[in-house]
Amino acid sequence: MMKQFMDSHFLLQTETAQDLYHHHAASQPIIDYHCHLDPAQVDEDHRFRSVTELWLGCDHYKWRAMRANGIHERYITGDASDWEKFQAWAATVPYTLRNPLYHWTHLELKTAFGIDKLLNPETAREIYDVCNDRLQNDPDFTARGLMRRYHVEVVCTTDDPIDDLRHHRIYAAEIANCKLSNGKLTKMLPAWRPDKAMAVEQPAAFRAYVDKLSEAADTNIRSLNDFLDALQRRHDFFHQQGCRLSDHGLSEFYAEPYTDTEISVIFNKVYDGTELSDLEIRQFKSAMLYYFAVQDHASGWTQQYHYGVMRNNNSRMMRQAGPDTGFDSIGDWRTAQSMARFLDLLDNEEHLTKTILYNLNPADNEMVATMIGNFQDGSIAGKIQWGSGWWFLDQKDGMERQMNTLSLQGLLSRFVGMLTDSRSFVSYARHEYFRRTLCNLIGNDIEQGLIPFTGYEEQRVRQMVEDISYYNAKNYFNFG
Amino acid sequence: MMKQFMDSHFLLQTETAQDLYHHHAASQPIIDYHCHLDPAQVDEDHRFRSVTELWLGCDHYKWRAMRANGIHERYITGDASDWEKFQAWAATVPYTLRNPLYHWTHLELKTAFGIDKLLNPETAREIYDVCNDRLQNDPDFTARGLMRRYHVEVVCTTDDPIDDLRHHRIYAAEIANCKLSNGKLTKMLPAWRPDKAMAVEQPAAFRAYVDKLSEAADTNIRSLNDFLDALQRRHDFFHQQGCRLSDHGLSEFYAEPYTDTEISVIFNKVYDGTELSDLEIRQFKSAMLYYFAVQDHASGWTQQYHYGVMRNNNSRMMRQAGPDTGFDSIGDWRTAQSMARFLDLLDNEEHLTKTILYNLNPADNEMVATMIGNFQDGSIAGKIQWGSGWWFLDQKDGMERQMNTLSLQGLLSRFVGMLTDSRSFVSYARHEYFRRTLCNLIGNDIEQGLIPFTGYEEQRVRQMVEDISYYNAKNYFNFG
Amino acid sequence: MMKQFMDSHFLLQTETAQDLYHHHAASQPIIDYHCHLDPAQVDEDHRFRSVTELWLGCDHYKWRAMRANGIHERYITGDASDWEKFQAWAATVPYTLRNPLYHWTHLELKTAFGIDKLLNPETAREIYDVCNDRLQNDPDFTARGLMRRYHVEVVCTTDDPIDDLRHHRIYAAEIANCKLSNGKLTKMLPAWRPDKAMAVEQPAAFRAYVDKLSEAADTNIRSLNDFLDALQRRHDFFHQQGCRLSDHGLSEFYAEPYTDTEISVIFNKVYDGTELSDLEIRQFKSAMLYYFAVQDHASGWTQQYHYGVMRNNNSRMMRQAGPDTGFDSIGDWRTAQSMARFLDLLDNEEHLTKTILYNLNPADNEMVATMIGNFQDGSIAGKIQWGSGWWFLDQKDGMERQMNTLSLQGLLSRFVGMLTDSRSFVSYARHEYFRRTLCNLIGNDIEQGLIPFTGYEEQRVRQMVEDISYYNAKNYFNFG
Repeated sequence: MMKQFMDSHFLLQTETAQDLYHHHAASQPIIDYHCHLDPAQVDEDHRFRSVTELWLGCDHYKWRAMRANGIHERYITGDASDWEKFQAWAATVPYTLRNPLYHWTHLELKTAFGIDKLLNPETAREIYDVCNDRLQNDPDFTARGLMRRYHVEVVCTTDDPIDDLRHHRIYAAEIANCKLSNGKLTKMLPAWRPDKAMAVEQPAAFRAYVDKLSEAADTNIRSLNDFLDALQRRHDFFHQQGCRLSDHGLSEFYAEPYTDTEISVIFNKVYDGTELSDLEIRQFKSAMLYYFAVQDHASGWTQQYHYGVMRNNNSRMMRQAGPDTGFDSIGDWRTAQSMARFLDLLDNEEHLTKTILYNLNPADNEMVATMIGNFQDGSIAGKIQWGSGWWFLDQKDGMERQMNTLSLQGLLSRFVGMLTDSRSFVSYARHEYFRRTLCNLIGNDIEQGLIPFTGYEEQRVRQMVEDISYYNAKNYFNFG
Repeated sequence: MMKQFMDSHFLLQTETAQDLYHHHAASQPIIDYHCHLDPAQVDEDHRFRSVTELWLGCDHYKWRAMRANGIHERYITGDASDWEKFQAWAATVPYTLRNPLYHWTHLELKTAFGIDKLLNPETAREIYDVCNDRLQNDPDFTARGLMRRYHVEVVCTTDDPIDDLRHHRIYAAEIANCKLSNGKLTKMLPAWRPDKAMAVEQPAAFRAYVDKLSEAADTNIRSLNDFLDALQRRHDFFHQQGCRLSDHGLSEFYAEPYTDTEISVIFNKVYDGTELSDLEIRQFKSAMLYYFAVQDHASGWTQQYHYGVMRNNNSRMMRQAGPDTGFDSIGDWRTAQSMARFLDLLDNEEHLTKTILYNLNPADNEMVATMIGNFQDGSIAGKIQWGSGWWFLDQKDGMERQMNTLSLQGLLSRFVGMLTDSRSFVSYARHEYFRRTLCNLIGNDIEQGLIPFTGYEEQRVRQMVEDISYYNAKNYFNFG
Repeated sequence: MMKQFMDSHFLLQTETAQDLYHHHAASQPIIDYHCHLDPAQVDEDHRFRSVTELWLGCDHYKWRAMRANGIHERYITGDASDWEKFQAWAATVPYTLRNPLYHWTHLELKTAFGIDKLLNPETAREIYDVCNDRLQNDPDFTARGLMRRYHVEVVCTTDDPIDDLRHHRIYAAEIANCKLSNGKLTKMLPAWRPDKAMAVEQPAAFRAYVDKLSEAADTNIRSLNDFLDALQRRHDFFHQQGCRLSDHGLSEFYAEPYTDTEISVIFNKVYDGTELSDLEIRQFKSAMLYYFAVQDHASGWTQQYHYGVMRNNNSRMMRQAGPDTGFDSIGDWRTAQSMARFLDLLDNEEHLTKTILYNLNPADNEMVATMIGNFQDGSIAGKIQWGSGWWFLDQKDGMERQMNTLSLQGLLSRFVGMLTDSRSFVSYARHEYFRRTLCNLIGNDIEQGLIPFTGYEEQRVRQMVEDISYYNAKNYFNFG
């Protein structure tokens, strides 16, 4: 009865799950509506010098695992050679059993490179060489080739308002000029991530950012109004480049009462060099969150909120390796009331656009799952979404808990499903992981008599799998 | 191996579970010690004009699902016809797969109406007509008839201290005069829900409430003492009508230190029109919670606390549709210390009566499950209870988590079990759902060798199922 | 298909789990790196007068269950006879089905006494007599004999800095003089638990404690510096006696900014009789936590933090029965930011030693599981550990959740595994429970195709089971 590791029925415990996955989920294209891929690598059709660059170049999940396994930083973010780093990773892999990295690693080896061998110190050299050979020589193993391989139809990168979106524009022009391959090339759109435009808690960095924004918007910023005008210009520019989505990285939500005058005063204080109080910082953030939301609503965009991260907890490593190097973790803020107040303010003034909420602490799952129900207004199905398991929760257990709780408190059938949220061109394997997990949950329920599976309802279930895998996102975002 | 949807072994995964459910749980009467049924409908033996009135008239669970499914408010709380509303619901039902509504809906169709068909747009008309025919014409399908059908032995409604309990009195007199049918008619008792008597955060509404209380208690209220005396009179009156249970809806617990003088001053401030500070509001609530608890202890009642709701989050819909229309959700207050302080204060002064704590956020499950252990005093088994999964948690997963955690941290065998907490006369099907879930948990444990099932222990297990289904509540509440 | 209760495959659902447990886990020795056994009972090789003394003498888990079962305090902590107390417990046991006590009880009867009968009122007398006979007459049923029976290689008790460690010294000398039996006798080491040295919130008790410390360290304490010097002397003394481990019981973490001068002033205030502000109390605790951590780092010890307990919630019973009698429960503090700040401060100044974090509220699981990743520095594998399910979580569900979340967010393979944290010499059966649970999780994953189990990986899995059962702890703590 023992199942083979990662065979074609991987994660699919029942025949019904296998049926659903293979017939309705496996072949759907991918709409990757949120990720951190580098648009330059897409535009320039980047060729990776080695699997180390592809896999270990900026994957802080792997870095954390290596540090926990007692690997010296030299082999992680230091000056060791590509082979030495790969070796260190290969030595760590067998110690990651039961961690999602073990599954990601082998699913990526299999789906990207067709490698069925397991990575460990004995197979490291062979796997390293095979991967590098493909990456260096095979025309299908460039950035774009890998996206084609995974049937990525649309990808939304994550971009700062000051970004000139040069690579998006060049790449879009290339696609437009090359109608023949249109069906095969991934559409790449920017997404608006204005976190720095609300970070007044670091006044010097904020002022420097305002200078850059000034330049990007080709305007002088001397007041809050100028600042907001400049942001609007950039928002318009992003919209012209096809952007339909914003994203915000928050520790908690902000919904302090404020007046426009107060925000103007706060903005000026940042320039006077007056230190801001905690309340003023929160007021400014509240005002900016509101402003961004009104902008997005006016443009018909979807807004995303990723909240709950406690960032840069290790100041020694922050100095040594910088941000986003694996020293972030899950916070425990209580933010239900601010979140409700913020969303209510928007809804009350009829400025609430399509919204996706992502929590990082699974202890908030039920709170968020019930929060979205407060603001479903019947205008479209699933207007307010609870985002898929994110970052630390982007694994089988996290996905299952998110989908189970969404099912219990809302409508799973209206879920826009998986996103990649990754910096890697092979992370698309995670969509397969997600879809298998989805089909497994549904299959189990069917076989236990919890979901009917004949006639009308059978068709509904089959369609539901296709919807969550692809069509819900396609219809929800309107990427055109 | 695939089980049929909702057959006689629904939710019962093992033969032992089936044995336990069918032989020990299925036929037990229902003691519904907390619900929101309308006593007038019982007293007047209400006949429903349609299944829409019965099902969609005040079921905010269904309303939320419809809004999430993109249904316009007109078909939810608006002026659409009964048939249009039913149609909108029938169109939504297939999108609720995996939501408890899917199970409730079909369990209610089956147990109340004997309908095995699944509700969807193709079956909507037929089901609508069959249900309406029964509701309009069959003598067994009135309010009382439905309760008889579900073997409801006792029902406790939820009543404000100012309520005259007219319907309770008339109905009780009718039962008393009609000894023959006594065994078949459900006993209806009031329950004391004095939330408005502590809501000083809304001074105008509070003053208006005090006026009504004044009238109900036939006394002048000019001071805090008058106010407390009036409440005591009403408490006595409720007691005479058979009330043995109070209930409190809280966001969090209150246990601020205060003096009686301070509370008098706060009470007077409400009349002076002086604005109360946050601390004063909390002090007043603390004092009232304490006062109510002492009253309940003196009368030998059981007190219930439902806490953790964040209410009326959507102010636009609050204006349009009022409270309790589906815009509440789960809060994330931290209230362990206040809860402990409050219960300790009562226990320390020997005023702690039988108590049931209900949390809304399942992240609090372990906290509450261990809290009750601090105040079990050996006087009766299970004196302090952790209430069954409530509101958003009143479903298979919520029930399982509550029963599993209660098992791990306390004594499942002493659990008073399920309540309905519903506004609907067909929600009694949820007791079947609960009992099946209970038997399934125990059956699984037995078949896995985690619970012994021979001799003395087998009898204990069989008795435990009957106890949790019926006898524990019967013995605990003493409804007479 | 029904499994027998607690047979040799207890908790082991798959053949692979059975293979792993019986071949790799069952026979490993126990390293009990944290417990509350009385060193005097080890040193004096205590003989128990009855199973009541052994089992019910200080087991507040059982006391809580009895109170919840309606047993009068007289039979719990009162003056009832040993037999009466045992009878009361035996009457309660059948009501504890699904509570871990049911499993602990019978696993202990089986592994310590070889008794397969189930404890209930019918078997109580026989079991009482058999156990007492062994305890009173069998040379293998003393304190030391029981530890031998469970293959306890090392035990670390929990000791106050002022303790003279007399029993540790005498016992160690005895072992040293008796080389022949060395391999069989359990090594007993002290562990440093300085909670009272930071408890300035109770000034009188703190001053009395300082006096005792003064005496123990043979020095006069007139200032903060004297106080810290005295603690250092005791730390050195503990180190000489083989101590390699500290432990701290906290409600939450403390990381308030402070200056050394401020702490001196606070220390003096305790002697002046000036009341401390909340901030001052937190500052003092922050300073002491930091000081202790620097000490431990300098000595190469491992530091443990048990946090999240809400203690002594029942003041009536506190007066009657004292602390640690079953009136503690799980708190809901939010402490992620303080915890991160505290660990970062240490890491930043290169004073962060090996650390084990234990949370009591499982709602914190993911937060803690990701927190440890922020401070893994690659120096040794698993430097920062997330401790095994503790107190209320020390049961199958708690262990599974801890191991599953650790697997998902870190490296299960580097986990130092189970500790006993008990006051009882038969609680060692919990290691068997833990190991069975571990093997079951891994076995299930293997049989479902989630973990490969051939060649290199099979060896890794087999080794992993041995590591978590024994070798990881052996290598991590360096007890010599």
